[in-house]
Amino acid sequence: MSSPEITSLKARIADLESQVSVLKNEAQTRGKIDKMSAEVKDSNPYSRLMALQKMGIVKNYESIRDFTIAIVGVGGVGSVTAEMLTRCGIGKLILFDYDSVELANMNRLFFQPHQAGQSKVEAAKSTLQFINPDVKFETHNYNITIIQHYDNFIETLEKGGLNNSRVDLVLSCVDNFEARVAINRACNSLNLNWFESGVAENAVSGHIQYIRPGISACFVCAPPLIVATGVDEKTLKRDGVCAASLPTTMGIIAGLLVQNALKKLLQFGDTSNYVGYNALNDFFPTMDLKPNPNCDDSSCVKRQIEYRDWLKVNPHVEVVEEVVQVVHEDNDWGISVVGGEEGEVTEEEKRLRTMGLKQEFQFAKKELNVDEGQASVEEDGEDLEALMAKMKSM
Amino acid sequence: MSSPEITSLKARIADLESQVSVLKNEAQTRGKIDKMSAEVKDSNPYSRLMALQKMGIVKNYESIRDFTIAIVGVGGVGSVTAEMLTRCGIGKLILFDYDSVELANMNRLFFQPHQAGQSKVEAAKSTLQFINPDVKFETHNYNITIIQHYDNFIETLEKGGLNNSRVDLVLSCVDNFEARVAINRACNSLNLNWFESGVAENAVSGHIQYIRPGISACFVCAPPLIVATGVDEKTLKRDGVCAASLPTTMGIIAGLLVQNALKKLLQFGDTSNYVGYNALNDFFPTMDLKPNPNCDDSSCVKRQIEYRDWLKVNPHVEVVEEVVQVVHEDNDWGISVVGGEEGEVTEEEKRLRTMGLKQEFQFAKKELNVDEGQASVEEDGEDLEALMAKMKSM
Repeated sequence: MSSPEITSLKARIADLESQVSVLKNEAQTRGKIDKMSAEVKDSNPYSRLMALQKMGIVKNYESIRDFTIAIVGVGGVGSVTAEMLTRCGIGKLILFDYDSVELANMNRLFFQPHQAGQSKVEAAKSTLQFINPDVKFETHNYNITIIQHYDNFIETLEKGGLNNSRVDLVLSCVDNFEARVAINRACNSLNLNWFESGVAENAVSGHIQYIRPGISACFVCAPPLIVATGVDEKTLKRDGVCAASLPTTMGIIAGLLVQNALKKLLQFGDTSNYVGYNALNDFFPTMDLKPNPNCDDSSCVKRQIEYRDWLKVNPHVEVVEEVVQVVHEDNDWGISVVGGEEGEVTEEEKRLRTMGLKQEFQFAKKELNVDEGQASVEEDGEDLEALMAKMKSM
Repeated sequence: MSSPEITSLKARIADLESQVSVLKNEAQTRGKIDKMSAEVKDSNPYSRLMALQKMGIVKNYESIRDFTIAIVGVGGVGSVTAEMLTRCGIGKLILFDYDSVELANMNRLFFQPHQAGQSKVEAAKSTLQFINPDVKFETHNYNITIIQHYDNFIETLEKGGLNNSRVDLVLSCVDNFEARVAINRACNSLNLNWFESGVAENAVSGHIQYIRPGISACFVCAPPLIVATGVDEKTLKRDGVCAASLPTTMGIIAGLLVQNALKKLLQFGDTSNYVGYNALNDFFPTMDLKPNPNCDDSSCVKRQIEYRDWLKVNPHVEVVEEVVQVVHEDNDWGISVVGGEEGEVTEEEKRLRTMGLKQEFQFAKKELNVDEGQASVEEDGEDLEALMAKMKSM
């Protein structure tokens, strides 16, 4: 027999016990699922994904379980990228980051306030494993640009896949050029396809780029201006100034990144080689970038030669791979833009704009004390070459 | 006076409360913040948002706290929409939904497995309040299309804002036409601006549309074909068949929705009147739709007359509002597409495609047993009018 007070206390205990259980990740969630089912019932977490087969979009959705994806950078874009792939039921995710969650990250999706202070990779793994226990996770809490970690990074890409195979795809979600160059070098040397992604410092533009060593321009073939000019990125960061960011822009870039990765892995639609996003006017430029025969990355040049040799014995594949042959323009990088539409704004300008380069360049100006009248990419409509010459002459 | 049992129960409660407190890491989460600060430090959740002012994107970011947004539908698009606005620090969110969380929703972002069985609005509020305690939340766990609830829905839009004002914007994230028509009717009658959003049944396309009563086409001015033809939506849903969905497409649509809402409320960039998204080829059509003078919604017609009268005494505002005057084509709906580019695929076809209408139409075909050879919008390139005539003659 229990009084109303006891009943009420017991109810409070049940509620608290359930809260503790959830917080400890011990809640009654589902067990692992051996085989993805298309059965339409509330308890099936894969019904809406397997429906892609019924709808005629994907031939074999469950093949997603065979793939391993490495995500470098688990911040505003990387964490959402990891969550999307986890919910899609990817086979294995390998996460690289060396940062900790802070309250200052709460303006972006994914991390929650109680995770402040935890390492990003560990906090992400804990949440993601709870969301989908079928996915395998591996975390690396280090900076890939430091020599000894870089070796481990390479080895992980080479052998970290399911059954000790190489990973199937690398997604770059880092926020600095040094890390991008490291990923670029690793993927060129391993001949691994990867996607580069980025969001501008002013939070209102971003892009994704699909890089196939030797076939499309690598990150060093077409370096952002700030890198090409040898300005030390670290000098651009100043006390009291931080980049702006929005959960909207980062969510959209993560969505475009994962969508194009899924299209490639599950063989539906057309994987874009480059998609830009300008939030101010909802402009989404797409384009193709050819590799630079004089690229500073020797592995890239090697992959280009291999690909040209391969094309000689596979002459018809050229069409399948949609490689457009264009005459290279005479600039320092041998970069030509192909497939774009004609208009007042050149594709190169659009690319610079979409990559937030004007913003980055403005930072550089402040540091270098450049004459205001000479320095705008957008306003003067100068070409990259002229601008480079100016930078060099400073 | 308390019995030993009660003492023991109270001790258990104290212990559990302390466990919950530790597990929630309450020491590391934050209390409410009175004023948004731009100070760059790890513990400031608003530094990256206030940086939008330093970057020259937004004039007064903190004004976001003055706004109330109603979100109708807290599913794959609506829950992410709510999370983005919460993390941006919106003043107040009002959530409408009458569904429960299921494991079958786990292929989309936001909800987690331990929330299965909880009402979507309550589960969402609990997570969102924890993420940002500065945001005010109000939840309505009912179906807005049922008469008695519709009245409360209208009243909430009218008086649910901060200080009992009307809400500033309504975001439709529902998954059916009936609910869209109800929101459309409410917003036309209250003269409230709103955004419509949608994702196709095959998961690979979607759109957002900004609707200003009397100024742009309302949802009934330009009805999707399936509604215009009077096919009962319910007959399209069959046992054993569910719509496909992807976290990527839904995340992108939520991102476009919130980004355009932010642009309007915080006055930066250009708010798009319509953005489509075709995931298969990364195509993002934009367009403007004029209202239909013969719209079935009488409030819409009333708003059109008010707007025309208003323009007469404010002749120069026409340019500011970017209303393009075009001659209406002779079709049943008086819909004309303006501002589009010329090409092989007409803008109307693009719109139909982007709205996933071919997919919906294919469902209709199955139900109606239509001759396969007559029924494809995309393949035959037939115009809407011809297609309507065919549907009517069946």
